[in-house]
Amino acid sequence: MSRINDQMTPSYRWAKRAHDTVVSAVIATAHGKPVELGGGYDFPDTLPDIVSEAMAAAQSKHETLQYGPLYGLDELRDAIVDYLRDDGITTARENILVVNGAKHGLDLACRVFVEPGDAVIVAAPTYLNAVQILKNAEAHFVSIPQDDAGIDTEILRQRLQARHDAGEPMPKLLFDMPDFHNPTGIAMSAARRQRLVELAMYYDFFIIEDDPYRRIRFEGEPVPPIKAFDNTGRVIGLGTVSKILAPGLRIGWVNAAPPILRRMASQKSDGGTCPFLQRTLVQLFRNGKVDQHIATLSTLLRLHRDTMIDAIREHLPGTSIRTPNGGYFLWVRLPPQIDADELVRRAAKEGVSTLSGRLCFAEEPSDSFLRLAYSFSTPGQIADGIERLGRAYAAMRSEFGPPPHRDL
Amino acid sequence: MSRINDQMTPSYRWAKRAHDTVVSAVIATAHGKPVELGGGYDFPDTLPDIVSEAMAAAQSKHETLQYGPLYGLDELRDAIVDYLRDDGITTARENILVVNGAKHGLDLACRVFVEPGDAVIVAAPTYLNAVQILKNAEAHFVSIPQDDAGIDTEILRQRLQARHDAGEPMPKLLFDMPDFHNPTGIAMSAARRQRLVELAMYYDFFIIEDDPYRRIRFEGEPVPPIKAFDNTGRVIGLGTVSKILAPGLRIGWVNAAPPILRRMASQKSDGGTCPFLQRTLVQLFRNGKVDQHIATLSTLLRLHRDTMIDAIREHLPGTSIRTPNGGYFLWVRLPPQIDADELVRRAAKEGVSTLSGRLCFAEEPSDSFLRLAYSFSTPGQIADGIERLGRAYAAMRSEFGPPPHRDL
Repeated sequence: MSRINDQMTPSYRWAKRAHDTVVSAVIATAHGKPVELGGGYDFPDTLPDIVSEAMAAAQSKHETLQYGPLYGLDELRDAIVDYLRDDGITTARENILVVNGAKHGLDLACRVFVEPGDAVIVAAPTYLNAVQILKNAEAHFVSIPQDDAGIDTEILRQRLQARHDAGEPMPKLLFDMPDFHNPTGIAMSAARRQRLVELAMYYDFFIIEDDPYRRIRFEGEPVPPIKAFDNTGRVIGLGTVSKILAPGLRIGWVNAAPPILRRMASQKSDGGTCPFLQRTLVQLFRNGKVDQHIATLSTLLRLHRDTMIDAIREHLPGTSIRTPNGGYFLWVRLPPQIDADELVRRAAKEGVSTLSGRLCFAEEPSDSFLRLAYSFSTPGQIADGIERLGRAYAAMRSEFGPPPHRDL
Repeated sequence: MSRINDQMTPSYRWAKRAHDTVVSAVIATAHGKPVELGGGYDFPDTLPDIVSEAMAAAQSKHETLQYGPLYGLDELRDAIVDYLRDDGITTARENILVVNGAKHGLDLACRVFVEPGDAVIVAAPTYLNAVQILKNAEAHFVSIPQDDAGIDTEILRQRLQARHDAGEPMPKLLFDMPDFHNPTGIAMSAARRQRLVELAMYYDFFIIEDDPYRRIRFEGEPVPPIKAFDNTGRVIGLGTVSKILAPGLRIGWVNAAPPILRRMASQKSDGGTCPFLQRTLVQLFRNGKVDQHIATLSTLLRLHRDTMIDAIREHLPGTSIRTPNGGYFLWVRLPPQIDADELVRRAAKEGVSTLSGRLCFAEEPSDSFLRLAYSFSTPGQIADGIERLGRAYAAMRSEFGPPPHRDL
């Protein structure tokens, strides 16, 4: 037979969604030499001791080493129902799907709702991995700004009404993180949450509420999750133990109406989330280690946050921040002449790992931001890291012109 | 504002790929009362003792409870390279991506190659979960029959040439399981493997070689994996410890050229495969427990297979089987008047769980088959289960007419 294709290098006929870029934040490890202020890692010093729970799980090998049930272990689903009850959410086992982290839940939601080109509403900025997952789903973005009360529901309403009036396809989904938003740290007001549910009903979209940071609260009183305002199944809740216990466990959940859950489960291609990890987590919920870790971590991270804010005020003049009442991150607005990507590169040379805010926008941002995580490093490391960042920043300021007047 | 959409039940605007069917085999658990001859579970009596390895992993919490590296732990990637070397495959760490089981690898391959409507070549029958994953990717199927030497490469060549001559889009991928194929148990000949690689180069497609059962061999000599015949990166190897160690660990791997691997990694939405499980598995590879489990399991499953074959000969007259030299499954051809789905339902009432062969075809099969797993149940349970199945079968035979002449 004559050769149709005889070159030694194969011709890759990629799907459109395939791309060769790995977001640098994702491949950063916690073991590098630089001061780590980039990734949302858990604080290493207080990672839970799970030795006895893991041993017990290993001993239940007839359960934990076989394929697990598709929706997750019943006892874990029940523990998640209990956990959510404390947040003011009424749900039941049949609404809970155990997944491999909240990102996996978002991915499954995309699979059951999003066709290439479908519009999805996100905050600007929003969670960088959500942007990546939505881009992998070939979603189009409707980016809505935020203020201190969260995503701006009046701008959202206007955008939706304009799309409707123009006969444009209406968004199917909205993705947001209402509590200690990644990257901004904003906690959405109760009025905005209520309004989002009304808009979802009115304009016929579903809300994906990703709420990993809710329990990492330093001050102030919580308002109910968006899901608590939802009587019609318009909200798909995502949760995870990554930020309240340990990211390495790779356990998250979806809390949604059964018609959604069944379709998401049908798209799971992992042979069921690991029953060994699920059994370990059931024990950690039962013996109070989850609550204990949340309390310890919240106390410590408040101090981390304060240390970082003090250091920023000292070493990053001309920047502005909003003090978050919880979560893992500070969102730093840079003066207009400072390019965030370049600052991140220079900071790395000074020995500190940070994250360019550009990664947190689904569409190109007009301003320049950094996301700084105070979760992983100690207060001493944070102070040192911000000082290093300050050196890179000062060099750029002297290089790229005088500070703007708002610096004073 | 006037209500555009005020009904209490939301209007779900599903993606086309979303479906509300969960394959029953997937939700079967190992804990039900019936004799389990349906699912490909590991044999419970010899599940490995991983207590000390899990304890050690829990103690390395700075590694195992944080986010892991995107491609997997280097030491696990190296252990996989060593494991593959024993199969005759030369590879290196940079070609290995750790995933959450082989199914996850197939899913990622679909994401980077398959657009809705793209053609994928599969054997008929083939692995039922691969069918599901490919359907979720909205692939079109090119189903090719098998004989005792594996997928029929001459029929495949004819089909491909006809597509080419007709100007039809050519398939991007071929999925197959060359060793102790699920469900047929067939081991592909070396000549067919070589031929598949030639066809892949000639007709410009990639081969996904899923090889979970290769080491579960009862007799005969292995031939090299398809990947060993590949000098140009045309083969994407999938592996897993589900069948050689424990399905509950949810660890698999992809062995492929870096351009493919990078794109697959970019589609991973799990926050990295669980580093706790990876570290546990590194230890199990190092201390020889993987090899030990393979040896023990292979010895036992040979006996299981023989018991099942004897019982089928006694209790299922008129059926035909091919004796597999390894793997987990027997593929039973039923007389034409016996509908497999109905037999599975009736067998369940008799207290034995089996799987209809219909689920193992990407397109509608012309004949009627059962897939029986001898991996999970003991020889005594297998004999009992086949006797129960035989009762349902005998009732159907008397109900749906005389046995065909080939019964004699």
